[in-house]
Amino acid sequence: MTASPPTPPGPDDGISRRGLLGLAAVGGAGLVVGGAAGGALAASVAGAASGSGSTTRYDFYGGHQAGITTPAQDRLHFAAFDLADGATRDELASLLADWTDAAARMTQGLEVGETGAVDGSPYAPPEDTGEALGLPPSGLTITFGFGPTLFETAEGVDRFGLADRRPPALEPLPRFTGDALDPARSGGDLCVQACADDPQVAVHAIRNLSRIAFGRASLRWSQLGFGRTSSTSTSQVTPRNLFGFKDGTANLKAEEPAEVAEHVWVSSEQGPDWMVGGSYLVARRIRMIIESWDRVQLAEQEDLVGRTKGEGGPLSGGTEFAPIDLDATDADGTPAIAADAHVRLAHPDVNGGIRLLRRGYNFVDGNDELGRLDAGLFFLSFQNDPARFVTVQRSLARDGLNEYLRHVGSAVFAIPAGVPEGGSIGDALLA
Amino acid sequence: MTASPPTPPGPDDGISRRGLLGLAAVGGAGLVVGGAAGGALAASVAGAASGSGSTTRYDFYGGHQAGITTPAQDRLHFAAFDLADGATRDELASLLADWTDAAARMTQGLEVGETGAVDGSPYAPPEDTGEALGLPPSGLTITFGFGPTLFETAEGVDRFGLADRRPPALEPLPRFTGDALDPARSGGDLCVQACADDPQVAVHAIRNLSRIAFGRASLRWSQLGFGRTSSTSTSQVTPRNLFGFKDGTANLKAEEPAEVAEHVWVSSEQGPDWMVGGSYLVARRIRMIIESWDRVQLAEQEDLVGRTKGEGGPLSGGTEFAPIDLDATDADGTPAIAADAHVRLAHPDVNGGIRLLRRGYNFVDGNDELGRLDAGLFFLSFQNDPARFVTVQRSLARDGLNEYLRHVGSAVFAIPAGVPEGGSIGDALLA
Repeated sequence: MTASPPTPPGPDDGISRRGLLGLAAVGGAGLVVGGAAGGALAASVAGAASGSGSTTRYDFYGGHQAGITTPAQDRLHFAAFDLADGATRDELASLLADWTDAAARMTQGLEVGETGAVDGSPYAPPEDTGEALGLPPSGLTITFGFGPTLFETAEGVDRFGLADRRPPALEPLPRFTGDALDPARSGGDLCVQACADDPQVAVHAIRNLSRIAFGRASLRWSQLGFGRTSSTSTSQVTPRNLFGFKDGTANLKAEEPAEVAEHVWVSSEQGPDWMVGGSYLVARRIRMIIESWDRVQLAEQEDLVGRTKGEGGPLSGGTEFAPIDLDATDADGTPAIAADAHVRLAHPDVNGGIRLLRRGYNFVDGNDELGRLDAGLFFLSFQNDPARFVTVQRSLARDGLNEYLRHVGSAVFAIPAGVPEGGSIGDALLA
Repeated sequence: MTASPPTPPGPDDGISRRGLLGLAAVGGAGLVVGGAAGGALAASVAGAASGSGSTTRYDFYGGHQAGITTPAQDRLHFAAFDLADGATRDELASLLADWTDAAARMTQGLEVGETGAVDGSPYAPPEDTGEALGLPPSGLTITFGFGPTLFETAEGVDRFGLADRRPPALEPLPRFTGDALDPARSGGDLCVQACADDPQVAVHAIRNLSRIAFGRASLRWSQLGFGRTSSTSTSQVTPRNLFGFKDGTANLKAEEPAEVAEHVWVSSEQGPDWMVGGSYLVARRIRMIIESWDRVQLAEQEDLVGRTKGEGGPLSGGTEFAPIDLDATDADGTPAIAADAHVRLAHPDVNGGIRLLRRGYNFVDGNDELGRLDAGLFFLSFQNDPARFVTVQRSLARDGLNEYLRHVGSAVFAIPAGVPEGGSIGDALLA
């Protein structure tokens, strides 16, 4: 379709693959500061090339995967993949190895491959799709997970000889009150969570991993999130969800290592061995009926949440980070935190001490045919047993906010531990 | 649905409407620097409250609407609205007046209303939905436009007595080769373009304008864009589109006032009077078939575009901003810029000197059932006659890139001039 036949790039044409690669290297000029555990440390260097990206760079390799306790980046592209029909265990292993290599490079601000062409040939397509060229690492983290169907399909088929490797905790989530799940937005054999300060960098990561998967796995569903709804570090300002409230004030924070160890990481007692140091990820696409919510008066909105809208302080008194007093009463003896208030039903004291590490994102995906924004919260939480999420979610069955919520997508994934340099994210599972 | 009856906020409860309003005022603490014409000047003050927002603040009022020559912000939420069945001319006027007031406030980092409740009553819902509380102005611009159907429906109905006010240039766009338009993503009586450095601020603007429209107009379609694909100022780095190429290198820039006057603003000679100082906006949702594109070798990609992928220099030689030499040939006499290269067919020299001011955005809206990302370019261009766009788009009928593009949405809007403080964006039209 070109008038003149394409000329392969040569070493002297000034547009060589090395030229392309060189551009990415400029973008990746920030410093990397230690961090044995993924997400523990990063250098934030001034002078981003453009856009909203930062030169923050997180180690990909480490004891835990990055993107869990890493300070929640502002933007998300999440994707669930299904293995291709007839894919073999070897293909699964090679896919995970290829993904690992590409993720390790992209998180450092490098192009996905070393040569610029998929097979090193000038007649082949570029190895990297290019839209992140010149952008800094932007705090990109890439986190991989395995869904229940990878171990055994709903029909009981063990496609990859993994049924006996399935962690007992990795069950499909039960049905919850009010679920209105779309199968096309639920489940998946594999997941990839890409978080970054620049959405172009997160999108570039998912696109290139999807491309690498071609023929072995394909996108089942994907979700962009434009605004984080949780802090995972005490260094972060608490963001707001699309109800207009601060969200995640009481979230687990990276600066609470004992609590993170207790609630998030799979211990050797919990097992199985290959999951030690890993976690479980629950993803829920929660549509907010914001047009109805926006007609609720301020005092009732605050009653439903259990916090003030402006400051975010609990209705039992105090500023944002004041402890919630579930027993406090108003002058007339009414509970300050209503019986169906969200913060009461989600509180550790009514859930056997359970705390979840949340990493959710606001989303808006256009609008429906009634002119209502398709908007809400893409809820993500990490915990060392999905049963912990189930306990909290069952408690929330009485949540007064439910009138304004529809859970339309759901998935659970086993998140393996991190991997040392040179390894593959599939090594522990497939050993 | 609450256990305890909601208590209206009072002046002493510490969670008053003033408390909410006060938060927004903190976010809006940046300086405003002059700028009679919208988007001409803005102050960029260090120290954003959180996220990617900036304290950049643009005047809403001025001779031209902001959001046209304003340096293209990184994020977009665009919305097309239809007036409600049976809406009157008075309702149209009041909607545009209410939108103007809200836009003037939101662009300054303020809440949408002054009191915190939609009618000043503590029993009413909050006047602002709240998700941008605490965020700085983030360079928000809000640009309004009028579609052909506002003046006369496709069936020839003049709902608002505006048929004789319709600018002759404001015709529905003709059908172009390869159009695969979805009516649900095309057209609209009104449009609102919200651009900001922080997507949460852009989304907040469209949500609140949609809410204000309730009962008078409703969302017809909307589109989020995560990454600008054009620079509109020489101060900006050229961004990349999802083909991985720099886009908008040769775009009209705010620093070329004579060219902007010639190509973008409606002159008194062009008229009609009420459109002088305005422009016309063309919006096209262009799906990129990126999975196919990603299989094209680098040299052919560059041939199709007419520029190198790394540097973005024209294939006729030179670096990014080198002039394109359409007559240059390779050593063997082949044109350096192919006959079907995008940059040739879009070049002013083959289009009667026409230049468009482009303000497009990259988008990814999940994926289709085949596992392909629903990704592409949301093309936006401003010009003082839509016929200019038509000329260029017809030239692009031979564009070799078309194999990788599908135009799935299309709209054109008259963009009135700016409005002085206290006026309404509908004044000139409805006078």
